[in-house]
Amino acid sequence: MISTFQIPTTIQPKISMIERKMLSLTDGYHPDLKAALEVILSSGGKRIRPLIILLIGDLLNGPHDQLINLATAIELLHTATLIHDDLIDGSVLRRGIPTLNSQWSPAATVLTGDFLFSCSASMAAETDNFEVIKLFSRTLTVIVNGEIDQLFSSRCNASKEDYFQRIFAKTASLFETSAQTAAILSNSAHEQILELKRFGYSLGMAFQIIDDLLDYVGDVSMVGKPIGGDLRQGLITLPMLNYVDSHPDDPAVINLLNHKCIIDEDEIQRVINAIKDTDAIEKTSNQAKKFAEEARQSLSAFVDSEAKQSLLALTQYTIDRVQ
Amino acid sequence: MISTFQIPTTIQPKISMIERKMLSLTDGYHPDLKAALEVILSSGGKRIRPLIILLIGDLLNGPHDQLINLATAIELLHTATLIHDDLIDGSVLRRGIPTLNSQWSPAATVLTGDFLFSCSASMAAETDNFEVIKLFSRTLTVIVNGEIDQLFSSRCNASKEDYFQRIFAKTASLFETSAQTAAILSNSAHEQILELKRFGYSLGMAFQIIDDLLDYVGDVSMVGKPIGGDLRQGLITLPMLNYVDSHPDDPAVINLLNHKCIIDEDEIQRVINAIKDTDAIEKTSNQAKKFAEEARQSLSAFVDSEAKQSLLALTQYTIDRVQ
Repeated sequence: MISTFQIPTTIQPKISMIERKMLSLTDGYHPDLKAALEVILSSGGKRIRPLIILLIGDLLNGPHDQLINLATAIELLHTATLIHDDLIDGSVLRRGIPTLNSQWSPAATVLTGDFLFSCSASMAAETDNFEVIKLFSRTLTVIVNGEIDQLFSSRCNASKEDYFQRIFAKTASLFETSAQTAAILSNSAHEQILELKRFGYSLGMAFQIIDDLLDYVGDVSMVGKPIGGDLRQGLITLPMLNYVDSHPDDPAVINLLNHKCIIDEDEIQRVINAIKDTDAIEKTSNQAKKFAEEARQSLSAFVDSEAKQSLLALTQYTIDRVQ
Repeated sequence: MISTFQIPTTIQPKISMIERKMLSLTDGYHPDLKAALEVILSSGGKRIRPLIILLIGDLLNGPHDQLINLATAIELLHTATLIHDDLIDGSVLRRGIPTLNSQWSPAATVLTGDFLFSCSASMAAETDNFEVIKLFSRTLTVIVNGEIDQLFSSRCNASKEDYFQRIFAKTASLFETSAQTAAILSNSAHEQILELKRFGYSLGMAFQIIDDLLDYVGDVSMVGKPIGGDLRQGLITLPMLNYVDSHPDDPAVINLLNHKCIIDEDEIQRVINAIKDTDAIEKTSNQAKKFAEEARQSLSAFVDSEAKQSLLALTQYTIDRVQ
């Protein structure tokens, strides 16, 4: 089953406005920047972070213009980190579309990412809220530090603690900040801000675990990049970590626990197939469902509304992406 | 004559505080980040941007803590752009010391730059002044766009207009913003802010023209990188542009006006020597002096003080670096 999330009709025009706003930031600058951003935007990202912000804004009757600026800033930040991330990983496809770095020089790719960072900082400043601006830049620090950790120390590392820390830095931190800053801009009470921060965090953790699961069980047309890429790159994610727990005698697991990567392609294929045949997949799915349940719980104190239903549907979609 | 600028004794402790503050931002993050930043800081940058900020702060009796935060943010931003710049240019030396990219992988270099960008955005937010934060991020956009322009369209381009635009983006924009934001934080009157903005702009233009001149007439031990690097990279700076004006019949000039780069190393050496033998050097020096004079003029409305004398001495030092 491939689940989809229907963006509420009241939200869709705002998402389009955010995309136009992102593009308009390149006006007056080098024309290739707009062209690059157009390709990136047309590659069909799900705009989940802006969605979280706009739905929480609706939930709390937040200020329209500031929320649009915030959502634009967060999506620009996300896009900039993806561009540098793809360059660093040498990825050639994202969402089935060639990455910028596969078509442009490393120099142009670095600078396009930098340009979007600078635009995102400008947009964040346009929220006119110091707390939001500070949280925003601190989150960028967390994301980048996570990438540095991953680059320097996390290859072929079978530690669950490191894994959860890594997916927080990579994904949940920006989900958390999206929800938290949307609540702050909406002048929410302190307790509500904390609940929504927890919502963002839990949703982000669930989202990334499912992404990591799809790298094992998804099909290439849906995931938009080759299956098993993480393991091939020495990136040990939750499905493999669960397999490590249940199959300590597998030679590949023994090697991994000695920090030896699996390099041979036949061996990688064998391990991927072995993981698919065990309960490692179901266990991973259940761990994602637990985070999704925590996300749902974080919303329980809010009265029912269309926005709340949409946030619950978004949570369900996050884990339904895999079956 | 090699001129030096003596940092005032009241300012030196603040510069040290800024350097410690820059390093402390890496606390709690990947240890290699601190190590990399230590190497960069020890390579002996002149901290001209923090100096401008601190001296203007003294001139206007500005708020100490916010000015320190601003100066830290600006120096971090400058450092981050240098790291990405060196990577893009493939530079192996800066100030006579190996660049980060010559020792680290491109991935680690990109991420270290990103990390410093994020820290600089956090520090800028700590000024608690929206106008400053907005100017700061817009300046980053100008700098990056300038680099993109240079990358995509300015090789072997003998246009003076493009040259002045490029050195504004590369250097004068951040000098200008340093001076302007220091004045804003010091609650200066609108007229004074504009005068100091012009001071920063003019000083930055003079500074970059002299840097470009030193690439022709400096010696390697002083400049810290090989002479003639700009021309070798197809970067046409003011000494060459002046030579183009006065020697339209030189075959290299004819080629250049047809957008053909000078590639042959003997030909590059011949052109460098030819430039040194003409008035192109003196003309360039005079153009820098004109900007320095404008910088001095911008300070004329301010009553005499130690800070004003230091700003004038800094201006003089900027052009005295070459003789």
